[in-house]
Amino acid sequence: MLSIEKIVVEQCNNSKYIRPFRLSYVQDGKSKLWDLMKSHDSVAIIIHHIERRSLLFVRQFRPAVYFNRVYAGGEQEVPPVGTAIDGDPRLGLTVELCAGIVDKEKPLAEIAAEEVQEECGFNVSASDLERVSTFRTGVGTTGSMQTIFYAKVTEAMRLSKGGGNPAEGEYIETVEVPISQLYDFILDESIPKPTGCAFGVSWFLKEKLRPSFVEVMRQNYLQIAVVSSGISLFAMLTAVGICSLRK
Amino acid sequence: MLSIEKIVVEQCNNSKYIRPFRLSYVQDGKSKLWDLMKSHDSVAIIIHHIERRSLLFVRQFRPAVYFNRVYAGGEQEVPPVGTAIDGDPRLGLTVELCAGIVDKEKPLAEIAAEEVQEECGFNVSASDLERVSTFRTGVGTTGSMQTIFYAKVTEAMRLSKGGGNPAEGEYIETVEVPISQLYDFILDESIPKPTGCAFGVSWFLKEKLRPSFVEVMRQNYLQIAVVSSGISLFAMLTAVGICSLRK
Repeated sequence: MLSIEKIVVEQCNNSKYIRPFRLSYVQDGKSKLWDLMKSHDSVAIIIHHIERRSLLFVRQFRPAVYFNRVYAGGEQEVPPVGTAIDGDPRLGLTVELCAGIVDKEKPLAEIAAEEVQEECGFNVSASDLERVSTFRTGVGTTGSMQTIFYAKVTEAMRLSKGGGNPAEGEYIETVEVPISQLYDFILDESIPKPTGCAFGVSWFLKEKLRPSFVEVMRQNYLQIAVVSSGISLFAMLTAVGICSLRK
Repeated sequence: MLSIEKIVVEQCNNSKYIRPFRLSYVQDGKSKLWDLMKSHDSVAIIIHHIERRSLLFVRQFRPAVYFNRVYAGGEQEVPPVGTAIDGDPRLGLTVELCAGIVDKEKPLAEIAAEEVQEECGFNVSASDLERVSTFRTGVGTTGSMQTIFYAKVTEAMRLSKGGGNPAEGEYIETVEVPISQLYDFILDESIPKPTGCAFGVSWFLKEKLRPSFVEVMRQNYLQIAVVSSGISLFAMLTAVGICSLRK
């Protein structure tokens, strides 16, 4: 049950999370300025429940997404302190890959394994994670790095219901999407999700699933028909040849 | 030729681009705070050069990516004003989908068409763009929306070399990746790129390309062999039957 209320704009001085600064540089002889901010790198994990033939995601309330979808008071202006941002809190729910920030000196795979346990409740070992690749998120503002992993889980690996770290005030729900519905899910705009989630699903569909034979037949019917006809013709000619020899 | 020098941290007050603010809210009875910032929505375009069998991307210097890759002076601290950020400027080059921010009251497809012309030099009409889907970028900080389109171009549609809007100080280079190399390209970590770029390529490979017959044969050799054998057996039996009837 999502219970979120009293969403109000507050003063924001010396934020621990949003620390803007500016770089100056000279590009092709011209002076330029760019405002950016410090941010953490992150890991994200494509979690494949192999018994249930599904992928697991996390759903949570994201204030920034909520604000962006609800507040229509001018693109350039920060709302004045005290402004109530009224709307259905469900507009702030996103579905994402299980993920976490890199805020400790540990191998990325270990941080990823911890997030799988914390957010989704499965005990995966860092050495069992498959590294997919790394990307840059927020290229305009933070340039931070996101490394994506792939993990297989089964019910035998379940330790808890997940739900995030209560000490960090996380309220995270696990969402399961059957493999057969994954592609519709990533293109469904009614479920806000990051591009990293859409890429993770695409990678999984390509790398971990063989295209179904029916789909392959449909997409390649002409070529398969030609090959099959060729094989059949050869078989018929062979058979006719054998018959003739017998005569 | 990339010429970028004298990259230095400057004072950043009242940034036009990074405007932090704070939301307070009550979730399940507990008061919470979240720092976020205002940001523009954006469009991005998967550009398919159909004659050249390639996709077109843009390469540019991204100060935030450069900083994130070069500066090792503590994850939490903003570097003091005057700090020189020394490193190979090529570390700040990213390859991305052609993209632009939504800063005018126009249909998204029109803004996308303008970006294709400005950054890559091709005249595409908004009505010819295919809308792929929308995603949320920066779910932690901005929650802004990115809408991805697909465009087909030919040399007959070329108006200029592209390169971005000089009035906005853009220095953008077009990068062409042959279809045969696309999948390796998105997983190649030596080329920094956003997850949106990786998703766009994945979508293209799935939606706009039929899997090659060789690949299909390889992935489905057992099933295809069974079907082909069945067809051949049927053909042989038919031929033998005909031969028998003739006798």
